[in-house]
Amino acid sequence: MVTVSDRREFRDLASPEEAHEVVAGLDIDPAPETVPLADARDRVLAERIDADIDVPGFDRASMDGYAVHARDTFGADEADPVTLSVVGEVHAGEEPDVTVEPGSLAEISTGAVMPTGADAVVMVERTTETDDGIEIRTSVAPGDNVMLAGADIAAGARALGPGTRITPREIGLLSALGVDEVPVRGRPQVGILSTGDELVRPGNPLDSAAGQIYDVNSYTLAGAVAEAGGDPVMYPHAGDDYEEMERLLHEAANECDLVLSSGSTSASAVDVIYRVIEERGELRLHGVAVKPGKPMLVGTIGDSAYVGLPGYPVSALTIFQTFVAPAVRDAAGRDPPRTATVSGTMAVQERYGEGRRRLMPAGLVEDETGSLLVYPVDKGSGATTSLVDADGFVDVPPGTDYLAEGEAVDVTLFSPAVRPPTLLGMGEDDPLLSRLLDTIGRPRYLPLGSTEGLRRLNNGVPDIAVVAGPAADDHDAADIGGWEREWGLVVGPDTDVSDLGDLVDGDYRFVNRDTASGLRRSFDDALDALGGDRGVGRAEVVDAIEGYELTTKAHESPARKVMAGGADAGLGLHATAAKLDLGFVSLGTQQVRVLANPDRREKHSVGALEEALDDLDSLADGIAGMEPQ
Amino acid sequence: MVTVSDRREFRDLASPEEAHEVVAGLDIDPAPETVPLADARDRVLAERIDADIDVPGFDRASMDGYAVHARDTFGADEADPVTLSVVGEVHAGEEPDVTVEPGSLAEISTGAVMPTGADAVVMVERTTETDDGIEIRTSVAPGDNVMLAGADIAAGARALGPGTRITPREIGLLSALGVDEVPVRGRPQVGILSTGDELVRPGNPLDSAAGQIYDVNSYTLAGAVAEAGGDPVMYPHAGDDYEEMERLLHEAANECDLVLSSGSTSASAVDVIYRVIEERGELRLHGVAVKPGKPMLVGTIGDSAYVGLPGYPVSALTIFQTFVAPAVRDAAGRDPPRTATVSGTMAVQERYGEGRRRLMPAGLVEDETGSLLVYPVDKGSGATTSLVDADGFVDVPPGTDYLAEGEAVDVTLFSPAVRPPTLLGMGEDDPLLSRLLDTIGRPRYLPLGSTEGLRRLNNGVPDIAVVAGPAADDHDAADIGGWEREWGLVVGPDTDVSDLGDLVDGDYRFVNRDTASGLRRSFDDALDALGGDRGVGRAEVVDAIEGYELTTKAHESPARKVMAGGADAGLGLHATAAKLDLGFVSLGTQQVRVLANPDRREKHSVGALEEALDDLDSLADGIAGMEPQ
Repeated sequence: MVTVSDRREFRDLASPEEAHEVVAGLDIDPAPETVPLADARDRVLAERIDADIDVPGFDRASMDGYAVHARDTFGADEADPVTLSVVGEVHAGEEPDVTVEPGSLAEISTGAVMPTGADAVVMVERTTETDDGIEIRTSVAPGDNVMLAGADIAAGARALGPGTRITPREIGLLSALGVDEVPVRGRPQVGILSTGDELVRPGNPLDSAAGQIYDVNSYTLAGAVAEAGGDPVMYPHAGDDYEEMERLLHEAANECDLVLSSGSTSASAVDVIYRVIEERGELRLHGVAVKPGKPMLVGTIGDSAYVGLPGYPVSALTIFQTFVAPAVRDAAGRDPPRTATVSGTMAVQERYGEGRRRLMPAGLVEDETGSLLVYPVDKGSGATTSLVDADGFVDVPPGTDYLAEGEAVDVTLFSPAVRPPTLLGMGEDDPLLSRLLDTIGRPRYLPLGSTEGLRRLNNGVPDIAVVAGPAADDHDAADIGGWEREWGLVVGPDTDVSDLGDLVDGDYRFVNRDTASGLRRSFDDALDALGGDRGVGRAEVVDAIEGYELTTKAHESPARKVMAGGADAGLGLHATAAKLDLGFVSLGTQQVRVLANPDRREKHSVGALEEALDDLDSLADGIAGMEPQ
Repeated sequence: MVTVSDRREFRDLASPEEAHEVVAGLDIDPAPETVPLADARDRVLAERIDADIDVPGFDRASMDGYAVHARDTFGADEADPVTLSVVGEVHAGEEPDVTVEPGSLAEISTGAVMPTGADAVVMVERTTETDDGIEIRTSVAPGDNVMLAGADIAAGARALGPGTRITPREIGLLSALGVDEVPVRGRPQVGILSTGDELVRPGNPLDSAAGQIYDVNSYTLAGAVAEAGGDPVMYPHAGDDYEEMERLLHEAANECDLVLSSGSTSASAVDVIYRVIEERGELRLHGVAVKPGKPMLVGTIGDSAYVGLPGYPVSALTIFQTFVAPAVRDAAGRDPPRTATVSGTMAVQERYGEGRRRLMPAGLVEDETGSLLVYPVDKGSGATTSLVDADGFVDVPPGTDYLAEGEAVDVTLFSPAVRPPTLLGMGEDDPLLSRLLDTIGRPRYLPLGSTEGLRRLNNGVPDIAVVAGPAADDHDAADIGGWEREWGLVVGPDTDVSDLGDLVDGDYRFVNRDTASGLRRSFDDALDALGGDRGVGRAEVVDAIEGYELTTKAHESPARKVMAGGADAGLGLHATAAKLDLGFVSLGTQQVRVLANPDRREKHSVGALEEALDDLDSLADGIAGMEPQ
């Protein structure tokens, strides 16, 4: 028997190719099923559909006019019409009650059954009603303006092949054949288990003090499973109840074609999974030699397949899309989506410290010609926001020392439905900016602070940088608009501070912003000025502020700390104080400027932003301390 | 008041540009709604989502190891470790019950809350447990291996903008923020009315003698509406009950944002629609100057918009995708799909007789380089099979005399989910061929007959032609395999025919195949031979066969006519007689050969077909009279 500890040391890591093979070797094929035609869109035909009936089922008039013996019209033209007598009429949807003998005709509507005897239709426009009958001013050949029974498709003919994906047009043909129950490939049932002790399902209250976080992977993977053609089944979260977790694992394995879990930080949870695989199945792979595939597990539990994914959200989605989605699509009979990958070139050089193969999270931005530039996204371990800050990942071969700027790379998107942002901005965060971005379709904005935004703009990656404070005046970029904002100290109701001197002199717990923010630069300038007034250096001034070193990256964070009672004063905006209903001590105003990458001025989104910047008044409405400039 | 007859003469036809404007001017915007996170995939955010909470909500260890005062480790390295005493441990999902005083540390798991006092984590790999405590062999800086509260995303920060399409990654971020009810754009409710007297919904019995046909447009349009982001609502078919139809039209207008109907052949049905628009709304457009847009109607009924589409399936889907789908997508907040159009070059010249702008149905085939060739598809008025024989349509400007072979054209696909066939074949139809095609993913095969298949192969359009009978030996193409099939007369139980002479001499109702079929050529050769034996010409022989001129296009059609009692004998295959349990009089065997376009031998699908042809035995199993060769 292989013990748990042996398994932990499971030989070497598998190569990605081996991992693909092992996953492809799992049997997750669902049984075919039958669905109503109304639900058949996007499903895949399980078998060939031959026509059971002729379409149309009768010789059908394809014009409004008169059903005739073609022979009776031979030689007729405008100059020499022939007149035939009317014996009756036939409308669409009714059985003809007339027979057309030679020399006669019947009025007929488009779609009507050709009456016995008639073999062609003369369109009404080429006829005149007279006292003697109908004057025909053209000659027709047998079959003219008639669709013969089975001419569209004949009974017994091949209509649609097995494996056909059903789009509206296939629905049309199935309709024509009267097929209202459609035999389709089943969707593999994919059970999703949530295994971290600390995880809480969205919608439930979160106890942050106890280290709880929301479960990101369960719904994300469910979405990715559905997108690949599977049917996700979410199982309840068992928390730290390992018996319940074991029970759910058995239940999922019994009910599903494939069971997924994503890496748990809990050794006990992992032990449960090993034990169940050991008792009821087989472990086929433990770890793939690709960052972040090391924690991947592949095996079977009873008749179900099992795949364990890494725990960090970007890693889980990356490994799912790389190794698992192809198997789900195969089982569902789906082709790989056309939009799953895009090609671009590296916007910057990216160096690698170690030789492992990796799936590097990457963001995309269109350059001025519409080509895609690719930039690495690394917000560090487990950042959920990398899911939306990146668009997908680049497969970087082992032993790659660096990807050069301008090097061509393929990016596998996090989902075939992902589309690159129309606008990439970086820099200061600001409530009016947030509204401004709402006017642009599909922007991406990374609130890295003014300094970092400007630095990256100079490196040519973003379309725009947003810069606040002193740096707003000190750059070479193209200024396309901006506003002024009032900043200062956001204070709690019991904090008796009326200026910067009070903060320095009093005994208050303060929360600062990080040095990349323009707010911080203006604050430091103000402290310098205060020091100057008092004839002391900045160091002396800041030493007197408790919490000066306590920095936060987001513009509301100091104020929220004040609101929560964790601080007395924080560096922030008038707008934030007003929004959160806190006190505010104004220390001045600062410029916020939107700077454009000079190469990207022609981009549609940059133009749209420039236009919106020209008309900021209504956007600024209701935000305290904002003055469009 | 404008009367119905005035409306019939509604000014001039609108230009396509006007039609786009009129449709865009309809108000079909649905109210936003809230959906559970599990159902949010593919929906569109109705409003911006700002983070309500810090993620993570606490300072979080991002490694397994020890929570320390970074200062205590300064200077520590492999040569000069520092030893600190353990004061406790903290696991993920639990509230720390220890405080880390200087000189001490706490064991900590990835994801756990940093205990009070600690400001960094030393990873377990750089430590050793000793009797005195934990030996630390590296120095860490404050913040090392810790993700600070809000570092992923901070409360108050912009998370996702309005209009964001929700893919799995957005689901991930929403999960992280604990958002389980997602404000999304509504899906416009689109009512679909079926208005032809002769139409029957699939699943119901069809009375072909009364001219009934299955309703193709209702489900097709419902599928296209759903694909564009709308919510299709199918209303019952009122048949020729015009009062009921009027009632349904009012009901649909009351319940939906948009009501669609597709052209009716019934003047009374059209009158009902006009009357309701007149009473409760406004007719804004009647007819668009683009073939097939002439019957298009646009107006309002109460608070709902109304669009009337042409009746023929290809026309209805073409006009829907061109004029209506963009409005449905806009209302749903969706971007135009990336895969809605493809570019190719004309495979053949196509001439136009008249100067009208047209949306020409077109099929696609990949050439040997993977580029798309475009060929016109015109099976004539109202053929449903054009939906699957074509892939979309080319917008041909007015006044175009011809599209030249090799000319670049864009094809709007019938649906963004349509993918061009992998293999295009034309020629004879045959039951073994049908099984052979089942082995290829996404083939298209047009059963045009041997002669026509060979002609088109010579023109360079299809990848393969399938040719049966005498023509199978008489060509210059590359033969990649084939089989022999037994053919003859398929006869009813009471038909006492034992050879061709009996058919000529007796009094039987016969059904023939069309002259493009290889079966017909072998049959005519046999008749020639009989005439030769008897010393008479073919004309005399065929005159003696009642129904010789009655031709059918599909290989089972004569047999099915016999089966239905409408004929005594039909030209057909042994396989068909066996399948339909009819009598069979063998008249010989004929070759069926698969001929490849010499330029396309390297196409993957042609190679796959060639392989399948090498191994026909199992495919032929159970089909009477087939002999793989």
